[in-house]
Amino acid sequence: MNRIQRALEALVDRIDTPAPIVLADVMQDNIERMQAFANQHSLDVRPHVKTHKCVEIGRRQVKAGAIGITAGNVGEAEVFAAAGFDDIFIAYPVWPSGTKGLRIRKLAVTTQLRIGVDNVAAIDAIADAMGSEADRLQVVIEVDCGARRSGAPPEVAGDLALAARNRGLVPVGVFTYPGHGSSSPDARKRAALDQDAALTTAVRSLTAAGITAEVISAGSTPTVEFSTSSVITEIRPGEYVFNDLNNTRLGACTQEQIALFVAGTVVSDWVPDQVILDIGTKALGREGSPERGYGSIAGTTGVLSKLNEYHGFLPLPPGGFRPGIGTVLPVVPNHVCPVVVNFEEYIVTDSTGTTLERWPVDARGFLN
Amino acid sequence: MNRIQRALEALVDRIDTPAPIVLADVMQDNIERMQAFANQHSLDVRPHVKTHKCVEIGRRQVKAGAIGITAGNVGEAEVFAAAGFDDIFIAYPVWPSGTKGLRIRKLAVTTQLRIGVDNVAAIDAIADAMGSEADRLQVVIEVDCGARRSGAPPEVAGDLALAARNRGLVPVGVFTYPGHGSSSPDARKRAALDQDAALTTAVRSLTAAGITAEVISAGSTPTVEFSTSSVITEIRPGEYVFNDLNNTRLGACTQEQIALFVAGTVVSDWVPDQVILDIGTKALGREGSPERGYGSIAGTTGVLSKLNEYHGFLPLPPGGFRPGIGTVLPVVPNHVCPVVVNFEEYIVTDSTGTTLERWPVDARGFLN
Repeated sequence: MNRIQRALEALVDRIDTPAPIVLADVMQDNIERMQAFANQHSLDVRPHVKTHKCVEIGRRQVKAGAIGITAGNVGEAEVFAAAGFDDIFIAYPVWPSGTKGLRIRKLAVTTQLRIGVDNVAAIDAIADAMGSEADRLQVVIEVDCGARRSGAPPEVAGDLALAARNRGLVPVGVFTYPGHGSSSPDARKRAALDQDAALTTAVRSLTAAGITAEVISAGSTPTVEFSTSSVITEIRPGEYVFNDLNNTRLGACTQEQIALFVAGTVVSDWVPDQVILDIGTKALGREGSPERGYGSIAGTTGVLSKLNEYHGFLPLPPGGFRPGIGTVLPVVPNHVCPVVVNFEEYIVTDSTGTTLERWPVDARGFLN
Repeated sequence: MNRIQRALEALVDRIDTPAPIVLADVMQDNIERMQAFANQHSLDVRPHVKTHKCVEIGRRQVKAGAIGITAGNVGEAEVFAAAGFDDIFIAYPVWPSGTKGLRIRKLAVTTQLRIGVDNVAAIDAIADAMGSEADRLQVVIEVDCGARRSGAPPEVAGDLALAARNRGLVPVGVFTYPGHGSSSPDARKRAALDQDAALTTAVRSLTAAGITAEVISAGSTPTVEFSTSSVITEIRPGEYVFNDLNNTRLGACTQEQIALFVAGTVVSDWVPDQVILDIGTKALGREGSPERGYGSIAGTTGVLSKLNEYHGFLPLPPGGFRPGIGTVLPVVPNHVCPVVVNFEEYIVTDSTGTTLERWPVDARGFLN
């Protein structure tokens, strides 16, 4: 029996399922291990809060040594700013649609706010929104390092930084996200090398434009182990706080370092070689594939093969383990980030399962 | 330009993206069309609120003639009961984990509550939880009609109804869900025929046990067109209120009957033949496949080919339409149900885009 199974066994009579359960001791170890790694390599940690969206967890990250937080959108930044976080980087190429320009301006004058930009149109629109207070907003130029998602080519970073400065904004550095490092264990190191190269080029581009890159910011839980080159000043991992099966498969964590699972109950068992759990896409998201499945039962070889909204299909080998109706099982997600938007609160315990607290998912639903 | 594009054009300066936009006039037509269909075939409508989780929309369904609502779990039922809905069917084989037994008992004594059961263990556990008030809880026996998800074999429905009665609960009928009707346009009718057969067998089984089936309840938006046999008394469609691309593909609605889309902004455009929108899995869920994509741009042939959490990848044909940075685009989901759990509120307008209201997603996050 592993620690997730032990914790669940101790808790089981006290929870309504489905419920996301956090092992606070495992989470704390994850936070401290990442911080120690960063300290060893003289990197600042700016954890991405999209993974947990929880003020209490953000506080623990800062207490452990994080210099601030990373947010994915203005709404997340507002929730954490309202809770007292005063150093926030929205690592996203924000476009100030609707009231977002005003919201950014309001945040920028009350906290140290940085936002990502990767194009001149957004720089202009954000500068327009900031008006006379443009110098309260720091911008970080996003460059692409091979993920082919957002981010300018590294060699134009200086031009963008200059465009921002010319509009009164304060360019402070560059960032990138090596998303192509999540495709396989081998891809992690290659993506981290791409990241080094892109950031190095981007910093040179800023220098050539006469702008100092104080912040040179890198991803991500799967690649951070290889993100230790001298060019990088800051890392923005998110998933490490909980970990998940994807990171286990990539070699970025061990099974014992997974700090979140979703508890679900067997509710129907009429189909031979299958039981149905009360965990569907509205708890796990549809992260996975028919081949890999959509989440695993901790401590077993069982994998959810299919999800409906409120139903999870668990195939069972003939003659093997067959949990009865009412049995509560721990499901470990493939990808932990989409889980949190589905729930009002975390059930927080530890590996012994004796304690039970409820922490709100404060920034859930704040998507813009 | 279709009605979604027209509405968005009129609204665009007033919304922060991503945002789920509801065309209230299209939605109202959908509600009234379903009700008229049901009236024509002497069926009761008990819409599934998991699709919208919104009290205001539920009220409109009841005002149009729905006899009550269907919920997917106890939490949804509680939210709607607190808002005054007094006839609620939890169409799910509920297991009373944790405090759920007490919660069901509390609901059952304050409203007309029905819950699904498909096994004796759950009947016993729920009866135990109801104690001396077991006769306040109506149960509906779930039978399988070929979806191979939850539901007992139809021929044992009578045994289960008798077991419920013997424990003091009030068996009132049977229900099933023809989920296998969503696999292709042709599957809809076949699944509806399976549904008829299963419900007919189940009703006979209840009759043989000396129990009258007052309620004989059927799904679902894709199959409802064929769910008009004389055995059925009630339909439980959910998606019809908004509709989506999956239902369009199945022939269950037209493009013009789609009442919800997600507005997103082009935030990055450095990659040739691609732009990035601020719509990812935390707005749409990961509903779709690499082949089919994860959502379409209304009025165009554009389809999101890949999603990260806050990024949607929109490939563009060389030389064709290329929206610039800051352009707001309307994304129609493949499957509408998972969208609602991601947002605090709907932006509600009509086909002209002139009105703008905000309706809360009241039961979002209530998953157990």
